[in-house]
Amino acid sequence: MAARRRAGASVGGYDPDPAALGLAVAHGAVDETAGTVHEAVAGADVVVVAAPVGALAETVGAALAAAGDGCVVTDVGSTKRAVAHHCDDERFVGGHPLAGAEASGVAHARDDLFDGATWYLTPTSRTSGLLYERLHRLIAALGARPAAIDPDTHDRLMATVSHLPHVIANVLVAQASRALGEGETLPATGPSFRDATRVAGSNPPVWADIYLANRDALVEQIDETVARLQEARAALAGGDPDAVGRWQAQAASERRALLEVGLAGGPVSELRVAVPNRPGVVADLALTLGRAGINISDMSLAPSPDGTSGVIALWIREGEAGRAQELIGDLGFWVAGAGGGES
Amino acid sequence: MAARRRAGASVGGYDPDPAALGLAVAHGAVDETAGTVHEAVAGADVVVVAAPVGALAETVGAALAAAGDGCVVTDVGSTKRAVAHHCDDERFVGGHPLAGAEASGVAHARDDLFDGATWYLTPTSRTSGLLYERLHRLIAALGARPAAIDPDTHDRLMATVSHLPHVIANVLVAQASRALGEGETLPATGPSFRDATRVAGSNPPVWADIYLANRDALVEQIDETVARLQEARAALAGGDPDAVGRWQAQAASERRALLEVGLAGGPVSELRVAVPNRPGVVADLALTLGRAGINISDMSLAPSPDGTSGVIALWIREGEAGRAQELIGDLGFWVAGAGGGES
Repeated sequence: MAARRRAGASVGGYDPDPAALGLAVAHGAVDETAGTVHEAVAGADVVVVAAPVGALAETVGAALAAAGDGCVVTDVGSTKRAVAHHCDDERFVGGHPLAGAEASGVAHARDDLFDGATWYLTPTSRTSGLLYERLHRLIAALGARPAAIDPDTHDRLMATVSHLPHVIANVLVAQASRALGEGETLPATGPSFRDATRVAGSNPPVWADIYLANRDALVEQIDETVARLQEARAALAGGDPDAVGRWQAQAASERRALLEVGLAGGPVSELRVAVPNRPGVVADLALTLGRAGINISDMSLAPSPDGTSGVIALWIREGEAGRAQELIGDLGFWVAGAGGGES
Repeated sequence: MAARRRAGASVGGYDPDPAALGLAVAHGAVDETAGTVHEAVAGADVVVVAAPVGALAETVGAALAAAGDGCVVTDVGSTKRAVAHHCDDERFVGGHPLAGAEASGVAHARDDLFDGATWYLTPTSRTSGLLYERLHRLIAALGARPAAIDPDTHDRLMATVSHLPHVIANVLVAQASRALGEGETLPATGPSFRDATRVAGSNPPVWADIYLANRDALVEQIDETVARLQEARAALAGGDPDAVGRWQAQAASERRALLEVGLAGGPVSELRVAVPNRPGVVADLALTLGRAGINISDMSLAPSPDGTSGVIALWIREGEAGRAQELIGDLGFWVAGAGGGES
């Protein structure tokens, strides 16, 4: 859709499911459809393979077999090491747009899905420079930001910042379920538990596939988590408040450093606002900041157990946080920079 | 403050720091101040001890020594096993209000801090029924919901739903810092990592104290996490998609069950809304729902890497979620029930 409307490309589509192809035409995602991979690829300048990770290498191989010398083939799989290993062709460049939406299938296609998104590309020393440049320009034309990365680093980073937190979320809900026991209800869960378990059990078949596609890197990361938990356990069992305090302070500085490199637009400040939890309060806050031209980079609402009140955490660009704090204070809400009460 | 204004009590205060006592008077938190624990406790019906967990047992002991036969003594420490063990007196009932604010000290006192909050009490077989009933009524008068729990269960639950997620957040930021290496920037971090690490490095001296006060229960929970991670690792290394899918599905059902017991007002539904990230969008959404009388139980905004767009997750009561989805759709935003794209 973005290739047709933004890059002016003529797009042909193939899918083993004819119904999906019909939908693609109906939604304006393709100009024409093909009955086979071979037919779809014939005469193409760029081929994009979107297939379950288990079928990726085979499908890329079929596309490469059908593609001409001057055609670049890429994929959009969420792990890159395996496909890079199997598809060592100068016309192939692995890819991974970090722009997943919550719903899949062409019925949910949007031409703005990739706006501003990082789109990883994994060129190798064999990759044709000419073909890489063509793919890079197409991806930029879709609205995304192409970024080259080697497949190993890609899979390790994705394991750390995406797959591992999902594994841990699953572990935490299992553990809490057991800790609750028969008939007990969950104590007023702080935002720490809720935030850490939001992604527990996400779409089981999709995630089983993602975990397994990246299992080598993920297993390494789980091993590292276990080792770090055992270090933390030893520090706690040792009972030295200074050592535990240093460990906690180290985490604070690591988190700050990650926030600084990870969020666009420079460092952000965290504000906490205590509010009654009634319809309209979030709107008041957001409107007040919006009128002043202050954007909310990120927000998280933690309701009190009975839902009558709550604390909203807001992340605001550092230069605007002081003004935001004043404006929120003027609304009559209690507001503070990030402290560290128990949550 | 709540005891004076809501329960009509006359409140005397003692603090080893005279400046804190002066602030307590200035903010209307106490009627009068005392120069010693003994003086403060003399003639009291109820004594509430708020002290760092390391000094708690000793301070409760001093209060019990000064208190009369008809006085109930309680505390507000975040762990209960140790103080229950040291203060085996029929006049003592351990307590823990789950209502921490982000800022500490009497300057941040609010009389509505406890509204609707669970306030755990740990009576034992030795506790005087008369004194327990008096404490229970006072706590209800403050606006909180007293809930009896045994000290072991209390500490285990707090370790699971609060202290352990903090430990894991610290581990995750340490691990991501290392995975990044020199000069690399964080890839467009999904909400899973950001949510799981929000509390990393919270107030180091306070949290060192909290961890150590509950270290027995916390160490047990860390051991359980390690064991569960090793099970997950084995399933992944085994490479059986069905087994991994079942594990993921199990986590989904555990999370649903926890949401049902953990959030007031019954089950909630999750909606996901794709929005441009500009000032005023959150306000539009919240105002629209607010006008329709639909309350947002919880919300989380996940910006795209460049901050130009994002996905807002909203938790809405089940009976109202369909109407909310319609209203949001009418605003022109893409909206869906929870699916499970990669995040």
